[in-house]
This record gives sequence, structure tokens and C-alpha cells, in this order.
Amino acid sequence: MDATPRTHIIGAGLIGASIGLGLRAAGWTTTIADVSANAERLAWDIGAGMPLGDDAPELVIVAVRPSDTGDVVAKALATWPGALVTDVASVKAPVLDAARAVGAADRYVGSHPMSGREVSGGLAAQSDLFSARPWVICQGEAPRSAVAVVASVAQALESDVVEMEASAHDAAVARVSHAPQVVASAAAAALGPLGADDVALAGQGLRDVTRIAGSPPAMWADIARLNRHAIVATLDHIIGDLEDVREADDIGEALTDLIARGNLEVARIPGKHGGRTREWRGVTVIVPDTPGQLVRLLTDAASVGANVEDLSIEHSPRQPVGLTTLYVEPASAPPLVEALERAGWTVAAS
Amino acid sequence: MDATPRTHIIGAGLIGASIGLGLRAAGWTTTIADVSANAERLAWDIGAGMPLGDDAPELVIVAVRPSDTGDVVAKALATWPGALVTDVASVKAPVLDAARAVGAADRYVGSHPMSGREVSGGLAAQSDLFSARPWVICQGEAPRSAVAVVASVAQALESDVVEMEASAHDAAVARVSHAPQVVASAAAAALGPLGADDVALAGQGLRDVTRIAGSPPAMWADIARLNRHAIVATLDHIIGDLEDVREADDIGEALTDLIARGNLEVARIPGKHGGRTREWRGVTVIVPDTPGQLVRLLTDAASVGANVEDLSIEHSPRQPVGLTTLYVEPASAPPLVEALERAGWTVAAS
Repeated sequence: MDATPRTHIIGAGLIGASIGLGLRAAGWTTTIADVSANAERLAWDIGAGMPLGDDAPELVIVAVRPSDTGDVVAKALATWPGALVTDVASVKAPVLDAARAVGAADRYVGSHPMSGREVSGGLAAQSDLFSARPWVICQGEAPRSAVAVVASVAQALESDVVEMEASAHDAAVARVSHAPQVVASAAAAALGPLGADDVALAGQGLRDVTRIAGSPPAMWADIARLNRHAIVATLDHIIGDLEDVREADDIGEALTDLIARGNLEVARIPGKHGGRTREWRGVTVIVPDTPGQLVRLLTDAASVGANVEDLSIEHSPRQPVGLTTLYVEPASAPPLVEALERAGWTVAAS
Repeated sequence: MDATPRTHIIGAGLIGASIGLGLRAAGWTTTIADVSANAERLAWDIGAGMPLGDDAPELVIVAVRPSDTGDVVAKALATWPGALVTDVASVKAPVLDAARAVGAADRYVGSHPMSGREVSGGLAAQSDLFSARPWVICQGEAPRSAVAVVASVAQALESDVVEMEASAHDAAVARVSHAPQVVASAAAAALGPLGADDVALAGQGLRDVTRIAGSPPAMWADIARLNRHAIVATLDHIIGDLEDVREADDIGEALTDLIARGNLEVARIPGKHGGRTREWRGVTVIVPDTPGQLVRLLTDAASVGANVEDLSIEHSPRQPVGLTTLYVEPASAPPLVEALERAGWTVAAS
């Protein structure tokens, strides 16, 4: 197999078409197919790949909905006995099982490109969809040479390769992605009994907790069914903690304990460049809610060389101003506050 | 009582001292006291108020920890029979009950200035702490004239006055603030079993859900004890929804239903200028993680008059680039994307 394998993509949806566009941009030869003739033709037209010819593919990338992935992977393994097959489903163990069931797990490597979908949703097919995102690879029973081929796909798409065992991946995404979606939706649903004036008391905290509760239900049914075991285990954990607070003789003590445990875990969530945890300091500034103000603020921040690691904007419920918090390295905070106040900004907190 | 009542503040912590600074800045005459001689002296020194003299106060603002508020309010009502008393505790019904217990509820008006505490925490005493924030007023059994006096305090501090009934306030904050804190902490605590590589799969979704789980436990024990009833009712609601998903014969269907219900509620959370819900469109751009890049990006955005309503930054786990999403009015998105691409930015999604 040469440096860029003859690659066939099955599924011309957002992910499949984006992979095709990205690989073509990187100089790969790709073909692409879809059960929908229209989707297939569109993918050919936008240059995601050509129609499959007589040459058998060396690498097959299955990019169909999670619930169909196992069957399509098994069929691809049988159809092209010389091909290596990978997929992009966000749940990995069931697909590995499907490859095992047809006795071809040595030619199957699992992939999970963690594209923007989980984050912002509704993306258009786009060659950069995977840039700077983690791309999980699950070796399963395949040789290292097979992992190297799939890794070359991720690298061509400028993703960050992360190797994990399939079941470990599924347990991890249940806790970092699937259960948080369930919990955010439940916290949002609990607003049901409130009137508009009550909901208007919402602060940035509620907005943060419920932001992903605004994402569309599509995909989640599939994911939940495939990763049910790990999601249920995570919900058991969460429900147990919530019940401890609900049932506690001293709810204050129980909540303090839970918050303290949460503090420790949040500190482990990588902020910048993996591993490094977020130890940023927030500087909150009152910003008139008009175009260009944010630019002025960040220009003034840059003037003292403060690198803004994160930023949050809270709009006032009734006034044309917002509170913008710039998160910077702790050492940068004092000079930043000084510079901003010198520039005429009102620093509400730091 | 003239336009600015002779005002005495009990409690020289963050809130009390900030109220004093703000009222003094607005030309009010304030005195301030604290059980801690050091805190009291500091408040005098920074100009939050003078020592209490022989003149009885016309207005007393109790700014002590929530669990002490009821007793201190009752004592103030007894000590100054001619004074109107208010407080700043984030749970209101128990304080009203305390005022009733001493038969002086006609001279008590509840306040809840929703300062940055719940949002960013760790603020320093600051005259602008309440600017552009909701200030809830609970009339209880006091006359309108008393409400007007307390409202004048909120107005002097540039807060947005919101009138609510005490028990309605407590039920509302349980759902918009207290329970979301419990849930965010539980979602964070559920990361416990994961290794560092697993946690590194975290995306912006988990960061949003767990951001407030990073806030210190301080204060929450008090709040939880005082608002236990409403918090437990909210947890019942949330646990019920989580159990429905956990127990469902078809977890996919159950989760889809929950997400759909959550979608409806999230749409009710005011974004900008109250009432108006967030219908913004996200434009995601790949931004080199170096100082000044964000300024460049926002300058280019401003060049087409796009008003950035919100902004989120996601750092790449392993690369020196980040994905920054600008949220703008839907109509502004297409021209924004065009302008950014013209300026050489890579738009990963819109």
C-alpha cells in the first residue's frame, strides 16, 4: 500500500463529504458513495470524491449513521477482502463487535473524529471540519500497520490523533459528552414551571449549564441506544450524587461535599494544549453593547500583551451594556486591570 | 424621609462594602458596621461608610451571611422602631418570616441583588458590583412607599429592579441558579473514574456544563439549607427526567423527548436585553493561539458591521490554535463569513 491509499468513502453526509473534501485537498485519491443518489451526486459535484470504479479500494471509510455503521462495516469487510476498513461512529465497541462477528477484526480500525458537531452543530460539509480536533483511533485486533494508515487519514485532515481502547472510548464519551447532554437538557427542562419574569433572573451560570440543551435532538437517539450501557452507568453516578443532596439530613454539608468533589474534577479538564488545566483569572469589564466595543476592549488588552485565553459575555437583562469577562494567566491580570482602567474601562471585578 | 435616607449598612463584606461604596459615590450618607472590628475599620477606610453615630438610621441594609440574615433583620427592626429594613440574602422567604415573627413585617422589604458572585465569584468590593444586574425586591407586607425607598437604593447602584413575591423568588432561583449548580457539580464529579487521556476528549459542551462546578463551595451550604424546599423540588424534577432516560425501554426515544423539552426551555432564557431569546448564528473560525489574533478577528468582523452577541473559544488539545465561534444575528452571518474568508481566515463552520 503506498503513502496515500486508494480510499473509498461510504456515506456522503456531513462527515463523509467533509473527509472526502479534506483528503482530496491533501492530494489523496478518493471515491465516495451514498445510498441516496442525490447525496452521492452532490458529493461528486463538490469534489468530495469520484464514483467508485473497477479498482478495489485499499482503505474504506464508513461514514453512515451510528446505528447502521456495524452492518455497513461488516459488508465492506466482506466485499473487499484486501481492504482495511474504518468508520467514524461516535460509539466504538459495537462496531468492533460487528467486525469480529464476520471474522475480519484484523482489517478493522475504529475512528471517532470529534468534529464540531457535538459542539456547535449544523455544520456544512467543509474540508477543515476536523482541523485541530481530537481524532480517536481504536486499534482493536488490527496490526500497527493498519493503525498507521488510519492515522495518516487523521493527519491529512490536521486532526490530533488519540489512541484508545474501544470500550474505554465509549465509557469516556459517555461522561464527557453524552451524559452532560442529558444533564444539561434536564436542567433546562426544570425551568418548565417558571414564568418569563422568573426565567429572566438567569445569569451566565444557567446559560453555560444549558447551552448544549439548545442543540437539536437529531443523532442523540442513535448514540444513546448504542452507548446505553455507559450512559446508564454515568447517570447512575450522577443520580446518586443528586439523591445524596436531596436526601441529606444536612443539605448544606452534602452540597458542599459535592461541589468540592466537582472542583477537583473540573480542574482536570484540559483548557489549553491538553493536560494543562485552566488556572486563568477573570477580569470583568462593563462593555457598551454596540459594535466595535469588544474590539476596543481586546485591543487595549493586547496593548499590555495579555493573551486572552477565554472570554465570556453576559448581556444585561434590560440595559444596553454587557459584562465581558476576559480570562488570562493570573500574572497578567493586575497589569491588565491597570491598563483597562487607564484606557477608561470600568472593571467590575477581577 | 428625604430623597436619600440616612442609611446604615450591617455587614462589611463584599456586598455590604460594595453597596456602601456605590451609595457614597451616588451622594448618599451611609454608615457601616460589622461584627469584625477589622472588617468594619477597613470599610470605613475605603469609604464604604462612616461609623454609626447617635442619629437613628432611616434605612438599614442587612448584608450578612444568609443564615444570620433573619436574626439580624429582626434585631434591626427592634433596635430602630422608625427604620425601614432590607437585606441582600439570596433566599427571601425565611427573612420575611423572621420579620413577621417580630411583628414588624410592615417595615421590612426583601432585596436580592444578583451580583457577579453567582457568576464569576471572588470579586473585590467595588462600587459597580451591581451595575446592569437584576436587583429583586420582595414587597412582602410593607407599603409601596417602602418599596420605593429600597428601589431607590437599587437605582442608585444602577441595578435593574425586578419585583417578585418572596416564595416565587426562592422557587425561581432554585431552578435558575441553585439546582444548576448542583447539577453542574454532579456532572463534573462523574468524571472521577476517567483517566487524563479520557478527560482530554472534553469539548466545549462539557466545559460549558461544568464551568460553575469550578466555583468555590463557600456560601452554598447556607443557601442550600435556607432554600432546601425549593431546591429539593427542583432536584425531584431533574432526577425524575434522568431516571426516565435511565429506565426507558428505548433510551433513544426518551432522550430525544427530553432534549426536545429542553430545547423549548432554553429558548426562553433571555439573551440580550431581557425577554428577547437567543436566536444567534455561530460562525466558527480557526484562530492561531497567539496574542492579538482575537483582536484581528473581531476587527475584521466589525468591518462588516457584525455585532458579536456572544463568543466562545475552544482551545485545541494539542495544537497552538483554537476554534473561536462568533455568535451574531442570523442575517449578519453570511456577510461575516464572506468578509472573514476574504480577510484570510479559515471558517470551520457557520
